[in-house]
Amino acid sequence: MELVEKHRSHNGSQEVYKHFSNTTNCIMQFAVYLPDNSKDCPLLYFLSGITCTEQNFIQKSGFQQFASKNQIAVVVPDTSPRGEGVPDNEDFKLGFGAGFYLNATKEPWSKNYRMYDYITKELPELISDNFQFSNSKIGIFGHSMGGGGAIQFALKNDLYKSVSAFSPICSLYKSTFSKDMFSNYLDNNSDDLDLYDPITLIKNSDKKFESIKIDVGLNDDFLKDLYIDDFIKVCNETGQKLILSKHPGYDHGYYFINSFIEDHINYHANILKM
Amino acid sequence: MELVEKHRSHNGSQEVYKHFSNTTNCIMQFAVYLPDNSKDCPLLYFLSGITCTEQNFIQKSGFQQFASKNQIAVVVPDTSPRGEGVPDNEDFKLGFGAGFYLNATKEPWSKNYRMYDYITKELPELISDNFQFSNSKIGIFGHSMGGGGAIQFALKNDLYKSVSAFSPICSLYKSTFSKDMFSNYLDNNSDDLDLYDPITLIKNSDKKFESIKIDVGLNDDFLKDLYIDDFIKVCNETGQKLILSKHPGYDHGYYFINSFIEDHINYHANILKM
Repeated sequence: MELVEKHRSHNGSQEVYKHFSNTTNCIMQFAVYLPDNSKDCPLLYFLSGITCTEQNFIQKSGFQQFASKNQIAVVVPDTSPRGEGVPDNEDFKLGFGAGFYLNATKEPWSKNYRMYDYITKELPELISDNFQFSNSKIGIFGHSMGGGGAIQFALKNDLYKSVSAFSPICSLYKSTFSKDMFSNYLDNNSDDLDLYDPITLIKNSDKKFESIKIDVGLNDDFLKDLYIDDFIKVCNETGQKLILSKHPGYDHGYYFINSFIEDHINYHANILKM
Repeated sequence: MELVEKHRSHNGSQEVYKHFSNTTNCIMQFAVYLPDNSKDCPLLYFLSGITCTEQNFIQKSGFQQFASKNQIAVVVPDTSPRGEGVPDNEDFKLGFGAGFYLNATKEPWSKNYRMYDYITKELPELISDNFQFSNSKIGIFGHSMGGGGAIQFALKNDLYKSVSAFSPICSLYKSTFSKDMFSNYLDNNSDDLDLYDPITLIKNSDKKFESIKIDVGLNDDFLKDLYIDDFIKVCNETGQKLILSKHPGYDHGYYFINSFIEDHINYHANILKM
């Protein structure tokens, strides 16, 4: 694990590391924010959206201010494998920046596009081995593709005690964002897609969170492609409580995230510090 | 004046416009943040550093949160003329991104590199014609090249009632950042450089501010090249009060600015709202 960047930020340290991943078979970068005195502090994972790297959230969301106030560490992985030899595609919805937080089953993607195992297994081990954050007070949140990813991970892994999302892609079946991914990474196999589709997982899972917090902008150009109302419906049917806020005027981007990041960090802090 | 971008942000609107400038003889962009109900609200100009456009500050500083709380509008111009036909240079300290907020006197720069007139004359008129902010409650601040620029503008123009800077370049005579600019834009003419050099201006000006707020990081790679201690000395000699904070561990970049932007916005708000 090699330090790439380190900046003092809000009485803490914003750091970026790179390491060779045996899961994705390439060099991966991730960011970590450490408030001062971070021993045993709660830890949040943030999963970014399509086209992002670990840089977008750490530069634009302004989360450090609130992570510092709440004494919470935040880890931000990249959104996909990258680099020479890793398959890519000109379409932004496929390849670099569009890992979709799943394990691809079809060649040539299956060698590297294994973000599900990377995020749930290799990265937590790396964090645990190299930092002294709490191993139990862990939450997860994300944006768009990563918002759906956060819900997916939280429903299937007891590691995460709290979950929230900005403008999540809720239906991998219906969204045009995931159409090419489905045919390329998963060979159009529905059984495989069911493993990652937030709506299917809510429907089939016995696991319930006390709440899932979701914020979405009503001026989001992609709003119809997120299928949030379908998600609300299945949550209502299965008794999964949502704390949902729809914000008039706000769009899909980081100006929206920056405007409501304080609420999300506080939401996780309240659950994780109990 | 044409709208380029518009995003809802912290109960306000982050907008970017472009227009043809008769001062710099090219198309210029600037950003403006309007809190809701911005009629007659105070206005702050932020001047960015070398290599920046209007985008860096609006994406990374997180100022909108505090401008919104204080009901202050913020205008962020680009740092130089740009585009086809405008002279540029491979060196980042010259040409695009390095306008140095002065009027160049030497060909080929003098046709476009007229940022002093653009910021003090054309841009305020454009803002006044198109928005309804206060015409008297106006402050200015900036970073690095723009920090020096803010001090320079404030000392010479009664338009600005408050001034502050992050890590300002205080000596255009000594800093290696301004060496190439001096020979290219100003033909090494000291009389011209005196018009823009913060230390010379403090020395020669009768005008005093009740205070000038300056923040600088002590882990700033460029610290020695800012000549802040020379600036402090001349301020002490001439009775210009400084509110100076040196921050251990912080560097020159936007993680530093983001960490202390709240203090700067509050500082201006307190003066401008009196």
